[in-house]
Amino acid sequence: MSSDYKTQKGQEFDRGAFESLLRRKVFLWQSFEPYGSVKGLFDYGPPLEGLESEVLSIWRDHFIRAEKMMALKCSMLTPYEVFKVSGHVERFADFMCKDPKTGEILRSDHLIGDVLESRLKSDKEARGEKIEETEEDPKRKKKAAKAAKGAVKLDDKVRAEYEHILAVLDDFTGDAMGELIKKHDIRNPASGNEVEPPVSVNLMFQTQIGATGNNPAFLRPETAQGQFLSFQKLLEFSDGQLPFASASIGYSFRNELSPRSGLLRVREFLMAEIEHFVDPESGKKHPKFASVANVELPLLSRQTQTSGVTKPEMVAIGKAVESKLVDNETLGYFLVRIYEFMKRIGIDLNKLRFRQHLENEMAHYASDCWDCELLNSYGWTECVGCADRSAYDLSVHSKATGQPLVAKEMLKEPYTVEEYVAVLDRKKAGPRFKKDAKAVETALEELSQDIKEKLTLEMSEKGKVEVPVSSVEGGKVELDKDLVTFEKQKRLVNSREYTPNVIEPSFGIGRILYSLMEHSYWTRADDVARSVLSFTPRVAPIKVLLVPLQRDTRFAPLISALEARLDAKSISYKVDQSGVSIGKRYSRNDELGIPFGITVDFESIEDGTYTLRDRDSTKQVRSTEEEIVRAISRMIKGKESWADVQKRLPAFETKEE
Amino acid sequence: MSSDYKTQKGQEFDRGAFESLLRRKVFLWQSFEPYGSVKGLFDYGPPLEGLESEVLSIWRDHFIRAEKMMALKCSMLTPYEVFKVSGHVERFADFMCKDPKTGEILRSDHLIGDVLESRLKSDKEARGEKIEETEEDPKRKKKAAKAAKGAVKLDDKVRAEYEHILAVLDDFTGDAMGELIKKHDIRNPASGNEVEPPVSVNLMFQTQIGATGNNPAFLRPETAQGQFLSFQKLLEFSDGQLPFASASIGYSFRNELSPRSGLLRVREFLMAEIEHFVDPESGKKHPKFASVANVELPLLSRQTQTSGVTKPEMVAIGKAVESKLVDNETLGYFLVRIYEFMKRIGIDLNKLRFRQHLENEMAHYASDCWDCELLNSYGWTECVGCADRSAYDLSVHSKATGQPLVAKEMLKEPYTVEEYVAVLDRKKAGPRFKKDAKAVETALEELSQDIKEKLTLEMSEKGKVEVPVSSVEGGKVELDKDLVTFEKQKRLVNSREYTPNVIEPSFGIGRILYSLMEHSYWTRADDVARSVLSFTPRVAPIKVLLVPLQRDTRFAPLISALEARLDAKSISYKVDQSGVSIGKRYSRNDELGIPFGITVDFESIEDGTYTLRDRDSTKQVRSTEEEIVRAISRMIKGKESWADVQKRLPAFETKEE
Repeated sequence: MSSDYKTQKGQEFDRGAFESLLRRKVFLWQSFEPYGSVKGLFDYGPPLEGLESEVLSIWRDHFIRAEKMMALKCSMLTPYEVFKVSGHVERFADFMCKDPKTGEILRSDHLIGDVLESRLKSDKEARGEKIEETEEDPKRKKKAAKAAKGAVKLDDKVRAEYEHILAVLDDFTGDAMGELIKKHDIRNPASGNEVEPPVSVNLMFQTQIGATGNNPAFLRPETAQGQFLSFQKLLEFSDGQLPFASASIGYSFRNELSPRSGLLRVREFLMAEIEHFVDPESGKKHPKFASVANVELPLLSRQTQTSGVTKPEMVAIGKAVESKLVDNETLGYFLVRIYEFMKRIGIDLNKLRFRQHLENEMAHYASDCWDCELLNSYGWTECVGCADRSAYDLSVHSKATGQPLVAKEMLKEPYTVEEYVAVLDRKKAGPRFKKDAKAVETALEELSQDIKEKLTLEMSEKGKVEVPVSSVEGGKVELDKDLVTFEKQKRLVNSREYTPNVIEPSFGIGRILYSLMEHSYWTRADDVARSVLSFTPRVAPIKVLLVPLQRDTRFAPLISALEARLDAKSISYKVDQSGVSIGKRYSRNDELGIPFGITVDFESIEDGTYTLRDRDSTKQVRSTEEEIVRAISRMIKGKESWADVQKRLPAFETKEE
Repeated sequence: MSSDYKTQKGQEFDRGAFESLLRRKVFLWQSFEPYGSVKGLFDYGPPLEGLESEVLSIWRDHFIRAEKMMALKCSMLTPYEVFKVSGHVERFADFMCKDPKTGEILRSDHLIGDVLESRLKSDKEARGEKIEETEEDPKRKKKAAKAAKGAVKLDDKVRAEYEHILAVLDDFTGDAMGELIKKHDIRNPASGNEVEPPVSVNLMFQTQIGATGNNPAFLRPETAQGQFLSFQKLLEFSDGQLPFASASIGYSFRNELSPRSGLLRVREFLMAEIEHFVDPESGKKHPKFASVANVELPLLSRQTQTSGVTKPEMVAIGKAVESKLVDNETLGYFLVRIYEFMKRIGIDLNKLRFRQHLENEMAHYASDCWDCELLNSYGWTECVGCADRSAYDLSVHSKATGQPLVAKEMLKEPYTVEEYVAVLDRKKAGPRFKKDAKAVETALEELSQDIKEKLTLEMSEKGKVEVPVSSVEGGKVELDKDLVTFEKQKRLVNSREYTPNVIEPSFGIGRILYSLMEHSYWTRADDVARSVLSFTPRVAPIKVLLVPLQRDTRFAPLISALEARLDAKSISYKVDQSGVSIGKRYSRNDELGIPFGITVDFESIEDGTYTLRDRDSTKQVRSTEEEIVRAISRMIKGKESWADVQKRLPAFETKEE
């Protein structure tokens, strides 16, 4: 997969060189390095923290402000009970095998995959076939390769079986994996030991609230549950009107058994999740759908995937919803908004597709799901899940707590129903049934219309009836006409109560940032050692590089004036006064993705003009301090492009690069 | 305390009414309400989430961008070892007492305080003295009051003793509190049971990383440690130059035993922490100090407090540093920047003071500390701590891990030293000492100059010497002149290695937001039921309210046009089309702190003009769509005030309010 991955300029993507840049420019590193680092935990240094901040600010503007979503911030610490009810205690788990002699814990699917792949590789070696490079953790691969102990040719049937297992590994249950491990004598590659059968391990971090030990809690694995539990507050805030959406930018946690793939699989991660609450009987229409109906999206449907095709098709979202390829307008509208967001932050749209989940792939709560996948050197990566969670979560929490999580629709045309009702005389029922009086009343109310009709007749005939009340002794009570009156009444129905459905676009911010960095990375044609991160002016963590021609005190007041002007506009900048050549200073700051450079030279002192350099083209224009800062400000806001500026301001030629 | 607390208009502050507003307008609520809520955990609804986002955006601009700080994001999950070394495992703790019969856990200092206060209250009742209202959890107070069982008069001496204990309660050790509890027969007020002696309970949330059980971890109680452990990366990013500052906005956790006081004491909270690394031998000068030296700050010194005064004095920071009241320029510079930040977000500067920590109050790592305290209805509340943590953290981590966390200063004037050196012949030492060879070499290197001089003489006389090596058998080795050479060498010293000191301004965002909400709250003079949150245009979560005069389809295109214009400028707004009067609509949105309102009426249809209303004064001006949106945009950016706009645009009178 990854060997096909190219930079935006069509160059081979060298992940080693890319990662070296990220390390050198302190974009990120494994946390707690002086203590030997912890897998699956990363710190972001200034460039990546800045990039994240800009991307989040666009997310807020694009979704929360523009769509008038209700922004929420909910607790990460979550009582045990909440995830018991949501299903996460049972289902948010991976299978693992323990090596009983070394105590090592191995993810069962990784273990099987590694060992079988290694045997297949060995088989290929023995057959003299070409071996494709894979992009996994080299250490782990080495262990697996070592375990293969030289090239061993497999029986054709065995080889086919291994290949089949690898293709469908995601679908195996724990028991099935246990059988596979036995049947194929799969052992811990590192030790050669047999492993214990797979057991399910929950992936939530557990802790305790307070000191009593009575309040077990988890760190949430998604921000969604807090939003569901806030539903009644939000409904109040929207004056009872649906549809509305809540949105939350917050951290979630997943106690990965053996984290891999850098930023793509981590234990602590930022999500931006939207919960759009909608009346299921509304057809999930969206008021703004018409405005996006013509937008074409790269869609890879379930059907296409089943037929083995992996290339998405460009389909107008209006047509996709019409043909039921995409289930409803709201889902379709969000796919378009996700696409526009990705465009706005600078994602390469040729490396984006929407893939529909296969039936067996969907989460336990989902009724339909499309992933926005971004292509990076690890392959197609799920970066946004866009699921229809139906009424699952609101229903289970409401049932478990007895608290209503429902909306009410006022009917435009109220109607009258005629119903049998049973009215208990409380004054008499109290003394008679004492503590059971309430239960008797409830039992009466809950009788079906059929039964009530029958009892109405019976009462009029016999003057007494028997009613089942499960909580009293004997399971039923006898009621005479003094105690209860049965009658037929008219009732005006003017509202309908329902549990809203939820459509949930859920963004993995870390994965988006990682993909964005890969999409932005390329090297100068004339020198592969000179790499560039071409972040758009809007997302670049630092906007401007100030470069005095050389160390000279005469430049100081000019630099100060430029700084003051940039500060006044809240534009971030960096001054590079080091002694190396201008070209070198630009090229090492291209690696930070700084889009613009201002050179201060001796002419600047004389005529007050400066050179403005564009990172991507390395072209330059020359103008006054005021004009240059204005152009930068307009390009950051997206009001002008570099091409526009080039048309306005005179070009400047130099032998710089 | 709180009975003195007034709104910005000098009105009595009614906390009940204020909290009712926060609930009604869904600013915040206790998390997981349908599951019965969890103490010390809060969710933020749209208005408070929005306010936080705006305040953080100002924080980023004010500190990270303007001061060119290195923004970092570090992991919350932290290995046990890190907090063992930092001292938190031992010292980040509270004392608690257990009620052995009910299992209840009580914070020892709260328990003593509650019981003694209740007895003093009862004593006052018995003496017929006036009782001041306190603002604590009413439920708890009720319990304590109940335990007092009617008014009981105390002996004068006992009364004085109780009062003394309450005054110095913070200073007691666990053992001392245990003695107090025995001596004064302090029991659990809820049950009347005796309690067990105080034990120290760590306040960090503990969990496990991975599934092996070998990696205990904590949720961090501060963001600082991650920043310290990233020191070498940051140093690299700054090309080895000090001073520099890192900054991190992130969550921390504190497993409070019994949380109180709403947002002021919570279990999960957002901090914004700055670590400013500086050479201790630089005198902690700050390059921008001169630019702020004349700014006057309300300072409450240690000395003033000791003399019983609580009113701060306005002192120019230049003078404060000169007189050593504030220890150094860097600390002083940050106090000014904190003050300016508070001003920028709309804090009432009459409710702000900087209080110096008393000697016994400082954290285990601090060498000097000033708190920025904000006055709210709970009293003076620490909202920013500004501590000099000296070299404590970098030193302990460096020592524990063996990784250098140091900076190097290149000397302007390198100098030469003459030193005795001992050079081991490794080729001979290897075979002779085998596995101990390295230890012998290290032992030789670490000998002091005095000893080396002595051994040089000895070797020249006897041809052999004895050197102590603790790890070898016998604790020493004999070395002859074939194995080791002693000589005097000249060495050029051109750099100085040192552990930087750290000055740490640490912001509690939740406390600042809570205080800001209280500072912004007041009620209309003509109607106390009409309350207002007067957030500045810059921090207000929603900027504009659009109000059509009445429900009428003719207003729809005008509203749409206004919406489009506001969207184009990314200005947030809300449309209130409900059927109630304009005055009512404005007044209920004043409670959300929306600073501006645009009224669309029949004249708007005719002449394209609209009314612009200012929330605080309820004054109005009238102009075109373009002019009004432009004025709003300029007021949000702080380029114009309402007074400026009133001068430019014609006033509009109405009977609205």
